[in-house]
Amino acid sequence: MDQNCAYCMEGEMVAKFGIKICELETSKVYLFKEQSHKGRCIVAHKKHVGDMNELTKEERSAYFEDVARVARAIMKAFSPDKVNYGAYGDTGHHLHFHLVPKYQDEFEWGGVFAMNPDQKYLPDEEYASIIKQIETNLD
Amino acid sequence: MDQNCAYCMEGEMVAKFGIKICELETSKVYLFKEQSHKGRCIVAHKKHVGDMNELTKEERSAYFEDVARVARAIMKAFSPDKVNYGAYGDTGHHLHFHLVPKYQDEFEWGGVFAMNPDQKYLPDEEYASIIKQIETNLD
Repeated sequence: MDQNCAYCMEGEMVAKFGIKICELETSKVYLFKEQSHKGRCIVAHKKHVGDMNELTKEERSAYFEDVARVARAIMKAFSPDKVNYGAYGDTGHHLHFHLVPKYQDEFEWGGVFAMNPDQKYLPDEEYASIIKQIETNLD
Repeated sequence: MDQNCAYCMEGEMVAKFGIKICELETSKVYLFKEQSHKGRCIVAHKKHVGDMNELTKEERSAYFEDVARVARAIMKAFSPDKVNYGAYGDTGHHLHFHLVPKYQDEFEWGGVFAMNPDQKYLPDEEYASIIKQIETNLD
């Protein structure tokens, strides 16, 4: 637990960029408010660890099951042509992956993705609709 | 196996961007020739699958053990301040992660990383030296 870490403290710190969807076995799942890529989520570990190597093998395996499960839900809900996965956090120390659905010939198709394109924010009811579609597709 | 896939065919197709370091249980490991981030590697799955969800749970776990193991070797060899992990491949269909060591206040620190900055290529003996340092640090 780190008092300066959004994924530890949640509340207002997470609200700047995300909306909590649910907790899974090892992780907290957030919808990324910037929705240039429809369905973009963050899967953060419940523990304040900086790298996957600070987990045991069993913890690492369980975490990537959560990552894969959220990706499956995004795939079922929105049928992207690809899901990208990225973990950066150079200046933070809390393991989290960005799950970024890509759609053929649309925004950032064929390349990497920006940390935050800061272009597309939605009304609350659209966030709620996207979250519901992800939740109902979590197997 | 896909005849148009660099990670399946290797040889000249991989040589355009990478140098093979070794094979691990589930993966092929390459040094990324563009070395703006010293020690940058690719860990590609041995199977031609497009997403981690095309693997079984056991295969997925074993793959991320390989990813974590290569990251540990990079950490021991070069002491980066962070390792970033990214899987994109929108137009390819072969699961691979970029492992990108970041160094405080140096190139791309604090952000994402470019697919290929195309700035820094090294003489063969320097590639060999980096590869040797990674190999000797694989636990």
